[in-house]
Amino acid sequence: MRNRAEKTIVDIAEALSLSVSTVSRALNDHPNISVQTKDKVRKMARKLGYRPNTLAAGLRSNKSKTVGLIVPRISMFYPAAITTIVQNRLQEYGYHLIICQSNDSYEQEVALVNTLYSARVEALAVSTTLYTTDFSHFDLFKKNNIPVVFFDRVPGNYEGKIVCGDDEDGGYQGAKHLLEKGCKDIVYISGPLTCSLYTRRLEGFKKALQEYKQSYKKSRVFFQELTKENALQTCKKVFSKKQWPDAIFATNDTTAITVLEYCRNHGINVPGQVKIVGYSNDPRTEIVTPSITSIDQDPTTTAERVVAALLELIQQKSATATKQTREIIPIHLIERASSK
Amino acid sequence: MRNRAEKTIVDIAEALSLSVSTVSRALNDHPNISVQTKDKVRKMARKLGYRPNTLAAGLRSNKSKTVGLIVPRISMFYPAAITTIVQNRLQEYGYHLIICQSNDSYEQEVALVNTLYSARVEALAVSTTLYTTDFSHFDLFKKNNIPVVFFDRVPGNYEGKIVCGDDEDGGYQGAKHLLEKGCKDIVYISGPLTCSLYTRRLEGFKKALQEYKQSYKKSRVFFQELTKENALQTCKKVFSKKQWPDAIFATNDTTAITVLEYCRNHGINVPGQVKIVGYSNDPRTEIVTPSITSIDQDPTTTAERVVAALLELIQQKSATATKQTREIIPIHLIERASSK
Repeated sequence: MRNRAEKTIVDIAEALSLSVSTVSRALNDHPNISVQTKDKVRKMARKLGYRPNTLAAGLRSNKSKTVGLIVPRISMFYPAAITTIVQNRLQEYGYHLIICQSNDSYEQEVALVNTLYSARVEALAVSTTLYTTDFSHFDLFKKNNIPVVFFDRVPGNYEGKIVCGDDEDGGYQGAKHLLEKGCKDIVYISGPLTCSLYTRRLEGFKKALQEYKQSYKKSRVFFQELTKENALQTCKKVFSKKQWPDAIFATNDTTAITVLEYCRNHGINVPGQVKIVGYSNDPRTEIVTPSITSIDQDPTTTAERVVAALLELIQQKSATATKQTREIIPIHLIERASSK
Repeated sequence: MRNRAEKTIVDIAEALSLSVSTVSRALNDHPNISVQTKDKVRKMARKLGYRPNTLAAGLRSNKSKTVGLIVPRISMFYPAAITTIVQNRLQEYGYHLIICQSNDSYEQEVALVNTLYSARVEALAVSTTLYTTDFSHFDLFKKNNIPVVFFDRVPGNYEGKIVCGDDEDGGYQGAKHLLEKGCKDIVYISGPLTCSLYTRRLEGFKKALQEYKQSYKKSRVFFQELTKENALQTCKKVFSKKQWPDAIFATNDTTAITVLEYCRNHGINVPGQVKIVGYSNDPRTEIVTPSITSIDQDPTTTAERVVAALLELIQQKSATATKQTREIIPIHLIERASSK
């Protein structure tokens, strides 16, 4: 493959009178290195014909130095944010990230687990589909002592390392916030309960209602895939009735944003007539008018805990923690104009 | 790996009295199958303990049935949209997609090309970093007769199959739109010219100025990584001067949205005092107030052409088209409130 004297980062460092570690971090787009230095290093790298040699490095050590990650959809803010932070952190340890999206199809997820196994990843991070209740496809990794770390959408009952937000507290805080504002009739829009985080958020929601001596009304709770289309259907249903709710608590931000758009298009005042709370603190909640109150799930801490778990398990050559160890990342509510 | 009589989709089809193709499409989340049928099929699949057998299928035919894709960032709307459509289309042909993001780091891109090669992908689709001007890392694929298709951010001078938007027309249409509205002093915010699509957009911009007998003013053109932070810096610079521009044409929507936010926060009326045009038709341009005029790049057609090229080259077992064949996908401007 290589037919000339290969240049290394040492050559780049010498040519620019920089330290080798500065050159390495510049080439890896490290945040502590200035744009000017990165530019200078990139130009010199190109001038010298420098090529990093990951494949050869992997072959020498008989390691792929690759981690796999499966998320439902890369277009969703929260899993995309975690993915990017996981990638950047892993990179500092010399690991590359291969990303797959299941599109919330159980069969796809099963197939992708096999695909990533055959791509020889050294570990796997997964946020499952809405419909994954059987986790036996991950046994392939378990049997071969390849670590698996679950995050965000995690199994309720599978042995393994789990990092997730405090979903019960999220459901509780969102509801409590609205109840403290005096709301008496909250519509709650949930994802399907096959996905355990929606069960936990619902428990939190119920707990807050109980504390504020309000009854849980089944007719005010909707279970659906949290898409724009479903959110519009639910709005139509809710606002075609005589009795409008005084608040809508949506368990994702796409739904919250769609509810806001529906209200604006139908002359329903937010927050005057209806208050809105979303979930995940998608940056879009800040740019709409009025801006939307949402639950921040701290993707940075979540991603860092996922990476710490991956590296620890890779080092131990252990497929998963011997029993389920669940790390719960605190959430916090960010109040904005939609619930003032 | 398998120690019991495996169930196949034929068993699921029989149990539900459905056709095998309906079951297959339901499990693959095909849009033509109803949610009810998908639910029924998924439940039966779980009940029967059905597991798709991609890995084994791959081993039998000695094919990985996997395609690799590298994009700068999955958090950007346009590459993410293309990625998802490419994945869904490839899936119909039994291919799985492995996604990597380069984070606009040239070294990362080089490393990921090697990573995907060692993951034994059968073909590669790439949108390059802003700084990729040397394409020799793709020679590894070329030499091994593994197809490479470039899209969106594509080489200016590398032999191979290319699918990209009509960037020159995009720059032209955006400028023409503002000139027709009577704008006399347009600020143009471009990405770095190391990335050839920004060169083409700038050419279109210049062409429109010429047609409308306006001179090209270097002081009104900014070259930068199109991030929120850089957009804010540029706004500060532009609006701290006595002479405000009457329009800003940003060559991505993150920049256009940030310009709008800056104007709102500083009491600058959009479109009254300053008109704004963005690029890519990111859905966020529709949800902000005022909504932002943008250039739609038709991610669906682009993705479909990328998939067609991948499948054709895989079948031909040819690394790339023998010479550069560039498919140009038409763009169109979508007028919204920010430039009325």
